[in-house]
Amino acid sequence: MKKYNFFAGPAILPQSVIEQASKAALSFGDMGLSILEISHRSKEFVAVLEEARSLAKELLGFGDDYETLFLQGGASSQFFMTPMNLLDEGETACYVDTGNWSNKAIKEVKHFGNVEVLASSKDEGYTYIPKGFDIPSDAKYLHLTSNNTIFGTQYHSFPDTDIPIVCDMSSDIFSRPIPTEKFAMIYAGAQKNMGPAGTTLVIIRKDLLGKVKREIPTMLDYNTHIKKDSSFNTPPVFPIYVSLLTMKWVKEQGGVAAMELINEEKAAVLYDEIDSNPLFVGTSRKEDRSLMNVPFVMAKGYEALEAEFLDICANEGIMGLKGYRTVGGFRASIYNAMPIEGIEKLVGLMKSFAVRKA
Amino acid sequence: MKKYNFFAGPAILPQSVIEQASKAALSFGDMGLSILEISHRSKEFVAVLEEARSLAKELLGFGDDYETLFLQGGASSQFFMTPMNLLDEGETACYVDTGNWSNKAIKEVKHFGNVEVLASSKDEGYTYIPKGFDIPSDAKYLHLTSNNTIFGTQYHSFPDTDIPIVCDMSSDIFSRPIPTEKFAMIYAGAQKNMGPAGTTLVIIRKDLLGKVKREIPTMLDYNTHIKKDSSFNTPPVFPIYVSLLTMKWVKEQGGVAAMELINEEKAAVLYDEIDSNPLFVGTSRKEDRSLMNVPFVMAKGYEALEAEFLDICANEGIMGLKGYRTVGGFRASIYNAMPIEGIEKLVGLMKSFAVRKA
Repeated sequence: MKKYNFFAGPAILPQSVIEQASKAALSFGDMGLSILEISHRSKEFVAVLEEARSLAKELLGFGDDYETLFLQGGASSQFFMTPMNLLDEGETACYVDTGNWSNKAIKEVKHFGNVEVLASSKDEGYTYIPKGFDIPSDAKYLHLTSNNTIFGTQYHSFPDTDIPIVCDMSSDIFSRPIPTEKFAMIYAGAQKNMGPAGTTLVIIRKDLLGKVKREIPTMLDYNTHIKKDSSFNTPPVFPIYVSLLTMKWVKEQGGVAAMELINEEKAAVLYDEIDSNPLFVGTSRKEDRSLMNVPFVMAKGYEALEAEFLDICANEGIMGLKGYRTVGGFRASIYNAMPIEGIEKLVGLMKSFAVRKA
Repeated sequence: MKKYNFFAGPAILPQSVIEQASKAALSFGDMGLSILEISHRSKEFVAVLEEARSLAKELLGFGDDYETLFLQGGASSQFFMTPMNLLDEGETACYVDTGNWSNKAIKEVKHFGNVEVLASSKDEGYTYIPKGFDIPSDAKYLHLTSNNTIFGTQYHSFPDTDIPIVCDMSSDIFSRPIPTEKFAMIYAGAQKNMGPAGTTLVIIRKDLLGKVKREIPTMLDYNTHIKKDSSFNTPPVFPIYVSLLTMKWVKEQGGVAAMELINEEKAAVLYDEIDSNPLFVGTSRKEDRSLMNVPFVMAKGYEALEAEFLDICANEGIMGLKGYRTVGGFRASIYNAMPIEGIEKLVGLMKSFAVRKA
């Protein structure tokens, strides 16, 4: 039976990427060696890393004033590296709180400077994206989380401001075009739309760096990695290689503009079913719904059917549909690599469940 | 033609590990999914991580008072995380300088406290391991680098001291038994004897932690990762899985005691040839020679033949024999996974080169 991987992350990768990755793990290019055992200074891997750095910028449309890095430590490490590199003591960074990941980012700022939370959707269980907040003109930067994997909310437009925006795009990178001119820095853990766990993409405008007074340990200074083209120390060779394969796949699909059309169609099929099916209810505000993570619950009166529907899905090859542990219900993560057939399969199960139970 | 991978790192892995890794990249266990796209919270991966953490301690013989972590960021991140977690301002950490890696570790201490370099072999080009130095009784810890990949030196015994020893074992982990009682903490980047690049093993005695006054960013605090069993954030799933496969392979070979006998034999075959062949000379002091990295140069008068010998080796499938870029000559990295046949092939080429040229 065909399995459909709806896990929130690490998440589904394109089948062609998986096949190429498996092959390279056995024998890479003309070297006669596995990519797992080749030097990061070999010309073969240097070419991989250069292509990955350049293709990331090309797909998103960032110009020459930005640098691309492939680091380690996940978005969780960017939560503290951002203020460590960009914020001096006494200065203030502004954050918008749209759920768990924003919160974790906010928590790390205190080690380096002041933090001001401009807006939060906590009042309504993080089911919407705050809008219309004021941004202090002396803020060093504004930090946003473009998509929330747990509550299924996503910015569909970004604030207009002269303050440099830093954005955690871990869960929707390469899923749509972004207004690059608005962002001073973006970052993304690989394990949603980019590749396997183990590397983090950072794209940063060079003029932002070298301005804080503190001394930064060598490995935590973005400039260290910029100067050494992401090879100051041994980079995570295989996760970067698989990320390159995925980016090439995105390009073959027509780039991020084409991905957006596909993702809009996929999400519409699922949200339409949620909205019309009497058994299910969506949990996030319609205007802020995520195209990547679709949370929903049983409708009022049908709560007892949740476990049964999860069982049906699991038996039919729909994997990872259980909602986040603190939220419950269901969550369908439908990243770039999820084919429309997976969503149609899920929608079909929802429809027939309603025929029998509603 | 059979290729032999003498790269210093990322380095050779056992062929059976490569084959299993490639297979899991296509389909892992009974899940019907690639290991590259499964949740780190799936019971299948939780089992991998638990087995990896427990097997690392078992192979080396560390007891229950130690915790095992699989982190990201390489040994280069441990260079600053060690003093950040263990050294308060005003306190002194002692280091022994045996080359590049020690130097990089020493450089990061200044951000957190005082550093005292007790001994260095820089005076003779790092060709030996300093011995007989005094260790101040108030040192917070003593940091050693058990094996130097560039200069081919290795500690064959460790200092007797009551000061906690922290040791970077990146290039000889699992290659031999170690006196665990001497070490308060060891760490190792995976990409030599443990697995592909992308994860770092840290084994630390729990009573060492939680004693410094500084506030530590969440991701940089060892206790964060201990409390969450190395899954505070998404761990590098695939590099950890391949590390587990390699550790299981070490166990199948008979464990680290058996590996040591094999490694001693392999190194003896190569060093004996270097010592008896008129064309080549070893560069490190005999008593401190590394069993993992064997550097040698052309003997006096034969320097002009270096490029020719490298070409011969490359044509015969001996890969990665060129010495480190700042050192020159040759370096044969003969980690656990290098079969004796690879060394016999190299020795055969050295012998026939001597017949023609000496």
